[in-house]
Amino acid sequence: MPNLTKHMFVLGIDPGLSATGYGVVESGHPPTAVLAGVIRTDPNTPTTDRLAELFTGLTQIVAESRPDVVALESVFTNQNLQTAISVGRASGVALLVAGQAGLRVSEYAPTAVKSAITGDGSASKTQIQQMVARLLRLSEPPKPADAADALAIALCHLRAAPLEMRR
Amino acid sequence: MPNLTKHMFVLGIDPGLSATGYGVVESGHPPTAVLAGVIRTDPNTPTTDRLAELFTGLTQIVAESRPDVVALESVFTNQNLQTAISVGRASGVALLVAGQAGLRVSEYAPTAVKSAITGDGSASKTQIQQMVARLLRLSEPPKPADAADALAIALCHLRAAPLEMRR
Repeated sequence: MPNLTKHMFVLGIDPGLSATGYGVVESGHPPTAVLAGVIRTDPNTPTTDRLAELFTGLTQIVAESRPDVVALESVFTNQNLQTAISVGRASGVALLVAGQAGLRVSEYAPTAVKSAITGDGSASKTQIQQMVARLLRLSEPPKPADAADALAIALCHLRAAPLEMRR
Repeated sequence: MPNLTKHMFVLGIDPGLSATGYGVVESGHPPTAVLAGVIRTDPNTPTTDRLAELFTGLTQIVAESRPDVVALESVFTNQNLQTAISVGRASGVALLVAGQAGLRVSEYAPTAVKSAITGDGSASKTQIQQMVARLLRLSEPPKPADAADALAIALCHLRAAPLEMRR
C-alpha cells in the first residue's frame, strides 16, 4: 500500500542566550534528523548583539530547512528569575522568527520532553542523547547536548502532535 | 556663548507583551518630548504574532525617530516567574531591534526610574505622569500611563548618563 501521508518537518529549539540548540526532524517510520546544531553567542558582547546574532541564525535555519512547525522548550518554572529573563529573551527571539515565517509554535516543558523521549521526566542529558540517537537511527549520540535536546524537543512534538496535525 | 553641545535623542521603552510604551526625548534645557505612544497587541492572538507586531512597531519607531541610544525598563525582580518570562520576551524583542540598529541600551529598574523622576522610588503612576509633564513642559500629563513611563525612562537616562555621553 502506498504511503499517502505527507511528512512533517519539525524544528525543535532549545533557547538560551549563550547557546540555542536547534534540530530539524522529518516525521516517518523511523523519523529522521535533517540537521542539528547550536548557535553560540559571546558572553563578552552586549545582549543586543547576541540577540541579533540569534535572530539572524534562526532566521537562516528556518529559511533553509523550511519546517512546517516549531517546537520550543518552555522556560523552566523552577529556575531563578535572572535565568528566566535571559531564557525569556532568547525564546522571545525564537518566537519572533517563527511568527515572521508564519509558523505555529508548540511549547513543551523540559520534563515533558524527557518523559516523551525516555519515559522518565528526570532523565539525564546522556540518557536523552542516547535515546535520541536510537529513535533517529544515528550511529552515535548527537553532540553537543544542546543539539540533542533540540532534536528531542522535535521528537516530543511528533509524539504529542494530534494525528490530524500529521499531514 | 553659543551652545556647542549636540543634543541627544533617547528612546525610552517600557516593554510588555500586551502593551509596550515608547517615548523619545531630546536632551536640552528643558528636555523635550519628540514622540510617545503605546504598541498594544491582542491577547487573543498567538504570542508569535504579537512579538512580530512588537518587532515591526519598534523597528518603525527607531527608523523614524533615529534615537542615539535606547533606555529600557528592566524586568521587575519581584514579579512572578510567568510575568518575568512574558516581559523577558518583549524586552528581548526590544533589545533585538536596538541591536539591529546598532544602538546601545541602558537598563533601569522601575524604582530607579521613579526615584530619578520624582525623588521617590515608590511613586505612583499619577505622580510619574505629573512629573514627566512638568519636566517636559507639557500642558497636561502624557497618556496612557505606559507612554508616560517610557518618557520617564528616557528622562531617567538623561539624568543618569555620564556627562561625556552627552554629546
